[in-house]
Amino acid sequence: MSLEKVLAQIDADLENATERLLELLRIQSISTDPAFAEECDKAADWLVDDLKSLGFDASKRATPGHPMVVGHAKGSGQHAVFYGHYDVQPVDPIDLWDNPPFEPAVEDTAKGRVIRGRGSSDDKGQLMTFLEACRAWIAVTGSLPIKVSIFFEGEEESGSPSLVPFMRENAEELSADVALICDTGLFGHETPAIVTMLRGLLAEEIVITGPDKDLHSGMFGGLARNPIHVLTKMIAGLRDETGRITLPGFYDGVPELSDEIRSQWQNLSFDHNKFLSDVDLSLPAGEIDRTPLEMIWSRPTCEVNGISGGYEGEGFKTVLPSKASAKISFRLVGTQDPDAIHKSFVNYVNSLLPPDCSAEFPLGHGAAASQMSISHPAFEQARAALSDEWPNAAAYVGCGGSIPIAGHFKEILGIDAMLIGFGRDDDQIHSPNEKYDLECFHKGIRSWARVLAAMQE
Amino acid sequence: MSLEKVLAQIDADLENATERLLELLRIQSISTDPAFAEECDKAADWLVDDLKSLGFDASKRATPGHPMVVGHAKGSGQHAVFYGHYDVQPVDPIDLWDNPPFEPAVEDTAKGRVIRGRGSSDDKGQLMTFLEACRAWIAVTGSLPIKVSIFFEGEEESGSPSLVPFMRENAEELSADVALICDTGLFGHETPAIVTMLRGLLAEEIVITGPDKDLHSGMFGGLARNPIHVLTKMIAGLRDETGRITLPGFYDGVPELSDEIRSQWQNLSFDHNKFLSDVDLSLPAGEIDRTPLEMIWSRPTCEVNGISGGYEGEGFKTVLPSKASAKISFRLVGTQDPDAIHKSFVNYVNSLLPPDCSAEFPLGHGAAASQMSISHPAFEQARAALSDEWPNAAAYVGCGGSIPIAGHFKEILGIDAMLIGFGRDDDQIHSPNEKYDLECFHKGIRSWARVLAAMQE
Repeated sequence: MSLEKVLAQIDADLENATERLLELLRIQSISTDPAFAEECDKAADWLVDDLKSLGFDASKRATPGHPMVVGHAKGSGQHAVFYGHYDVQPVDPIDLWDNPPFEPAVEDTAKGRVIRGRGSSDDKGQLMTFLEACRAWIAVTGSLPIKVSIFFEGEEESGSPSLVPFMRENAEELSADVALICDTGLFGHETPAIVTMLRGLLAEEIVITGPDKDLHSGMFGGLARNPIHVLTKMIAGLRDETGRITLPGFYDGVPELSDEIRSQWQNLSFDHNKFLSDVDLSLPAGEIDRTPLEMIWSRPTCEVNGISGGYEGEGFKTVLPSKASAKISFRLVGTQDPDAIHKSFVNYVNSLLPPDCSAEFPLGHGAAASQMSISHPAFEQARAALSDEWPNAAAYVGCGGSIPIAGHFKEILGIDAMLIGFGRDDDQIHSPNEKYDLECFHKGIRSWARVLAAMQE
Repeated sequence: MSLEKVLAQIDADLENATERLLELLRIQSISTDPAFAEECDKAADWLVDDLKSLGFDASKRATPGHPMVVGHAKGSGQHAVFYGHYDVQPVDPIDLWDNPPFEPAVEDTAKGRVIRGRGSSDDKGQLMTFLEACRAWIAVTGSLPIKVSIFFEGEEESGSPSLVPFMRENAEELSADVALICDTGLFGHETPAIVTMLRGLLAEEIVITGPDKDLHSGMFGGLARNPIHVLTKMIAGLRDETGRITLPGFYDGVPELSDEIRSQWQNLSFDHNKFLSDVDLSLPAGEIDRTPLEMIWSRPTCEVNGISGGYEGEGFKTVLPSKASAKISFRLVGTQDPDAIHKSFVNYVNSLLPPDCSAEFPLGHGAAASQMSISHPAFEQARAALSDEWPNAAAYVGCGGSIPIAGHFKEILGIDAMLIGFGRDDDQIHSPNEKYDLECFHKGIRSWARVLAAMQE
């Protein structure tokens, strides 16, 4: 049977597959920082070359931002379009990395072998699991079990500004029966998952300006308005004592869990004490009447991702600053409308703004939450295939992160997306010392090989 | 009469005096940043050499931090010790400077000629007014009208950690009849002032740690404690709706103004609308039942001087940070006790700290406020001399800034300090594009020449 040979080929080729991933990880494709634009381009070229070597009709496609990569393999039967992103998060604080973030390596750790480096888990390591599965199928059988298209983005970590226009312009070319997305994690250490519920994201930045220059806090302090005070008051007021977000209309469109999902989640072995203690915390910090799993999967949130103002260097400086700013993200669920919440947020900020201060909102873009329909047969085919590979059966789960691409596949192309990924909670994505377990990479490749076989049936 | 010849000498030598100041301004003596330690040392050497060239018995004196400069001139009659500081503030944000901060120059502006550069007003330009007055007296008469000692510090902008120990150890050598301090401003554009009321300063830093690493806000947001939320809530709660600081015991020792001072201040032509509109503000932001002059001179304050946490770079990063921090200064008046307020602040922070977060307080040092006694005859002598030089008569005023040295002269050496300075409100000290009006430098030198003459009488 072909699948057995393909799996054997994957096992035999693991070292080469790892080397290929390390090569891609060395490319510093940080999309949010314009200084790394050439590196993003280089990553796109690398992927185009790799796809061509597999026989894909692949090309780099220009956008106003970083390029897309699109490729098509010949094939018959079901048609799947696979999505991943080749861009990565910034690396600061750089001094907390044990090794340089773009000098990836395989390391032996107490918990097993890991591939260490920026992007190893999010998302280069994950997208390569699929390409390596294709490579093995082609090596063994000369073709793929189903028809496959590839769609890689280079702006996922910076708000995906080119994504929707590109999908609209190329809707026909990108259409398929089902979308495959590899940018999520396992549910448990050895429990695979298909995500069917994704939170949306509204990204905001506020910049408060008070005096037109930095002032001496001795000369002006007590009389002149300090924009840090204004900003902290706004942020402190965004949540009430029970953890609810106070913006008017914020909870419009937030659904309650169905009894079925609620009872399914109660049966999942989610140990929130361990989840928190792994990061040195102990107390759930969200709405007091919600369970920890609801807090991260099904409830909307408001998090300050960064704050800045005045003197932040060593020592002390008695400055009363001209400006203070914060970056704030809202995770959205159900049918919460990012545009309506942006307006509510702007109104809230303006209502607390003293008349002689000003507020700017440089961001304010977002994407609504997504809920997959699992009626397409590919969902059960994939769930069975994943269950074959891993010790525990695969589960349909929610996801706290925002992967707007899943919603775009539905809205623009009319197809459901299967979010299957092999990251683990301790991968430290977006943080220093990001890693991807070698086991996840290996079994991820084998999982996709199985999913492709199952979809052929 | 000697004074007339001395004033003529000052006028004739102004260009050379300016060149000497520019030379001192080129030395990058930022005391708060250890990277500039050598530059601080260089500034001290420069001053020792200049004092020696005037015939002072001068030397650089080691401390655990940056060195002091002490010098003595022979003389008789009243003995004055003059204090200034040769260190300067950091220069960030560097991109807001029109010219490099340590490449000073004389510029023509719409408001007259100015000496532009870091330290031009605070405090190198000011301390040089006194040395230039001494230089002119010595050039014309071969000696000074009174006995003069010099005491320069190099850590004023970084909390003066070595000052008190040094003054205690060298109390006898630094003692005099009266202290002269040149680190303040004119009261009005052409109205000189002697400051007799100085606010104290308590400098605090809080560092809040939540999770032990930066987290992905999608994966953890809503469940994990965000230290920026904790910090902003603490800061927002430091003041109530009326502008009062909420720390228990904070107002212990805050005196009400005497009727005499209150009526004197009411007669001063302080235009708070102009003071605020000059920095693009319009509304007093302090306690609602206090006058603007009280807010900056006689009431205690709490200002956040800097805040930092999470992602502060370009673009957006969905991080839930491990740490958030703020630098906070309290200006103190009357007999407010910095140690007691530090304790109250620590208690307040801890009372709002979730059990699984921690708070550190790396600073927490301070100095109480000072109130000069003006009974020493030198005060009236100086006030008359200043009134002779400037179009308007000199006034006794309060000062919002904290110049703890004045209190130390009283407590350690038992002598009152006369704070006489020639800065203007638009000097942008501690800010980009700091300047010192050439007129202030010139008339400042002439003012000290007159004060020395008056003290001889």
